[in-house]
Formats: sequence, C-alpha cells, structure tokens
Amino acid sequence: MGRKSDRRKVLRLRGGTATTRPDTLAVEEPLEIRVNGAQVAVTMRTPGDDFDLAAGFLVSEGVIGAADDVVTIRYCDEGRPDPTYNVLDVTLAPHVVVPDFARNFYTSSSCGVCGKDSLDAVRTTARWSVADDPVRVSTSVLAALPDRLREGQEVFERTGGLHAAGLFGATGDLLCVREDVGRHNAVDKVVGWALAGGRVPLAGCVLQVSGRLSFELVQKGWMAGIPVLSAVSAPSTLAVDLATEAGMTLAGFVRDGGMNVYAGAHRCDVPALATARPVTG
Amino acid sequence: MGRKSDRRKVLRLRGGTATTRPDTLAVEEPLEIRVNGAQVAVTMRTPGDDFDLAAGFLVSEGVIGAADDVVTIRYCDEGRPDPTYNVLDVTLAPHVVVPDFARNFYTSSSCGVCGKDSLDAVRTTARWSVADDPVRVSTSVLAALPDRLREGQEVFERTGGLHAAGLFGATGDLLCVREDVGRHNAVDKVVGWALAGGRVPLAGCVLQVSGRLSFELVQKGWMAGIPVLSAVSAPSTLAVDLATEAGMTLAGFVRDGGMNVYAGAHRCDVPALATARPVTG
Repeated sequence: MGRKSDRRKVLRLRGGTATTRPDTLAVEEPLEIRVNGAQVAVTMRTPGDDFDLAAGFLVSEGVIGAADDVVTIRYCDEGRPDPTYNVLDVTLAPHVVVPDFARNFYTSSSCGVCGKDSLDAVRTTARWSVADDPVRVSTSVLAALPDRLREGQEVFERTGGLHAAGLFGATGDLLCVREDVGRHNAVDKVVGWALAGGRVPLAGCVLQVSGRLSFELVQKGWMAGIPVLSAVSAPSTLAVDLATEAGMTLAGFVRDGGMNVYAGAHRCDVPALATARPVTG
Repeated sequence: MGRKSDRRKVLRLRGGTATTRPDTLAVEEPLEIRVNGAQVAVTMRTPGDDFDLAAGFLVSEGVIGAADDVVTIRYCDEGRPDPTYNVLDVTLAPHVVVPDFARNFYTSSSCGVCGKDSLDAVRTTARWSVADDPVRVSTSVLAALPDRLREGQEVFERTGGLHAAGLFGATGDLLCVREDVGRHNAVDKVVGWALAGGRVPLAGCVLQVSGRLSFELVQKGWMAGIPVLSAVSAPSTLAVDLATEAGMTLAGFVRDGGMNVYAGAHRCDVPALATARPVTG
C-alpha cells in the first residue's frame, strides 16, 4: 500500500525567487468503517494501519474491549480490480452487542450536550477504572517523550503535515507510534495496535500526543485504560475536567524541559512547591 | 456568555521548581445543532458565535446559501433555569429543501469513500464556481496574512489552544477572524458571519487558517465560494487535489516571507522561474 505520503507539484517562493519542484505531502483519504456489513463511520485518515484504526475506533466507542471481540477485519474491495482499500468491514464475535450506530453516531465525540452529561456518559461507558492505576511516572521521563515521539515519526519529517500519538511504558520505553492527518485517528491506531496484542486495558502506560489535548482524546485514553496523558500543547477545559473525573494524569505544554500538570499529579515526582501562590480560579 | 476561556488550577514545573497557579484554557463544550427541531450534528466547539457556526455548517453541507434561507436561530434552553446554551435550533425558510441528515451524516466530511468520488460529490453540490473568480492576490499580501491573523486572535494569546480562521479581502484587509478548538468550526463561524452579512459567495476573498489544510477545509471554502486559501502549515494530498479541481488558489507553509503555491498560481504575482527543475512527481 505505502500511501502515507505522495508528491504534488509545487511552486516554491522564497526570497523573491520561484522554483517548481515535487513536494511530499501527507496522504489524506476517507476510510469507511463497517461493522458486520453495516456502515458505522467515515473518517478522513492517512492510509496505513487501517485495521488498527478500525479496532481502536470501536474500543473508543465502547463496542469492543479485547482482541477476541473481533473475528475478522478485511477490505471490502480486496481482490477486485482497482481496489481503493478505503472501505473495510469488521466482523465481531457473536457475544459482542452491536449498538445502534445510526442513533449513537451524532454523539460519538461528545456523549451528550452539556459537559456534565458528557462526563457521566463516558464514566458509564468505560469498561475499566484508571483512577486506581498505581503507576508512577517521573517528570524527567515525561519531559523526554516529545523528542522520542518525534524520533518515531516516519512521515512528519517528509511532509510536516501529520499528527502523532505514541504509547510509552512508565520508564519512557517506546511501545508504538502512529501518525495521521487526524489526531483522533493516530490515537485510535495506537489503541488498535494494543488491542491486537492483548494489551488493553493499557494499565501503567503513557500516551503522548504531538499537539493539543481535546475532550475526545482524553475520552479515547480512558476507554483504552491509559492512566497518563501528555501533550506538547494546551489542553481544553473539558479535557482537564474529564481527566480529573477519570482520575487520569494529564500533562500539557510538555516542552523545553518544563510542563504543566493539570490532573493526577500524585503519579509524578513533583518537587516541593517553591511558592504557595493563592489559586483564584 | 463570555465562555471562550476559563481557568483551571495547574501545577507548573520549570527548572526543577514547582508552583501552582490558575491557568487560562480554551473552553471546549459540545454544541448540538438542530434544523427545524431535528438533531443534525453535535460538534465540540469553543462557545461564541454559535449562530454563525450553525449557519456556516449548513452552508458547508450545501443546505443553505443565502441569509434569507434562515428564518430564526435560537438556543433551545434560553430563558430556562441553568441554560447551557449548548443546543440550538435553526428554523429554515419553507423554500429550503432539508436533506436527510441521518443518511448524509456519515459522509459529511468526505462525500464518498474514494478520493475521486469525493471530488465529484463536492463539485455536484457546490452552488457556485470559484474557478472563474478573476481576483488576483499578491504574494506580499499573502505573506503578511499569518501575522494579521495572529493579531486578530483574542483568545490564543491567553491559552495557546485555539485554531483560527481569518477572512481577508484581496488587498489584505481583515474582514473577520474566528477562533475555536476545532479548525473546521473556526471556518464555519467565518462563513456564517459572511452569510449573515449577505457576502456569500465570498468572491474575491482569501481564507487564511492557522494550521494545516485538510480536504474538509478546502471543501468548506469551495462551498462558501472563496477563491483563495492560505495556511501556515502543510496541506494534505486531497486538499491539493480538491483545490486543483475547484480552480482555487491554495498556498501552504506561508511563513517567514515564503510560501508554497500548490494550485491556482495564476492569481498570484509569481516571479519568473529561477530554475526549471524537472518535476518528477
């Protein structure tokens, strides 16, 4: 397949001069995910690790939680002339209850409409608690993860156009890195990889992402049983609120040796507070 | 309302010392969009300009194309105790054909499953051609837009956590800037603003975005009749392909005075090619 990057002709303007050349871009194509033959989602993704993406998506949606929940995953057009490899079908085991996706789809990334409802819905759906995960992660390990994530990215250096998600052990050992034009897809691919290896729930693990942390990514982390999330950039309010509710550790702005810990600091070796400024918000 | 940013307590680690303080974060909350009383979408967004977001979303979906297609937009819980302002209902004029959103929702961001189908579907749906837009935009104007966009961002400086979309005239005059945790929402808010002012289709305008350019953003630009798109970071392959099909101008990596023009360079004052390197891809 090898369609993670592709070239397009570009007119390059620098310092008043123009040149033409082929530029390498991240590939974006739609993937239709079917479950037992019925369409459940279409996502714009970078091709590659599509089976993991589909499996991770179903973990995020609370449909499956173990490798043996899946019987087969296959491309619908494989073997036909001019296959696109853009439609796949997941056959689930008979014991898996398939939800009414048509009804649930609208709420897949929000689980409700006010924030409180959202948190309640996720808490009800999650198969495992992450609050009790006893793992501890040193801040020096967390500080090193963005560089390790970048080292693991194959396509970003060529294209500058991909999000990444990396799964690490508590001592910073790299388990899996995935890249995608959609940050949620990168996380789903990592989770799907873990599911196939019998690693879900991902107790004791750290998920590092290349950009910002949204509610949806924290939700995916919780659904996969990951106790520690870390991001190079800012979290949103709802990301912090959900991580707090879940008992997850959430670090943001992990860069230049520093970081902000928004939730679950008890898992980190935090030095004594240098100052005790009053917290007003 | 004023809920674009909010504060959360944070443990801040820098240079081996820890402090606690309130940190200002971008607010993320779900918005449920209803049309004539029926739910059509839930999006995670930063509150503010919600009516524009809903209207712009409906322009992007091809449902409406002019201000008088909308009769009213209102929050469903306005006036009730503890309103969330997270559910709104758009009442459309009787002449507007409301599509079957339940059927179309899956394909809203892809319009098909192979790239070719996607392009065909958008071309069929778009109400106006942008290929014939005679506007010309100088590269010096384009090069200045990222800084102008940043100047127009209210919330980013406080939170570091928001995407932005800015609409500019061909001489670089700022028309509208919107910020959101979701880049597609920022664009929808700009388009909704334009629709309310009778400016759609946005002939002669430039849309500048803060991050990367995906297929979905190009699609939204086309649906709003915008001939020129510009991004600080990389486009995807499908973004370039769709812009090429549409006859739009697409610039990426607009930074440090330089840029890459991926499509529609005829609208720019491109200097003579310095070298004629063979294009192999």
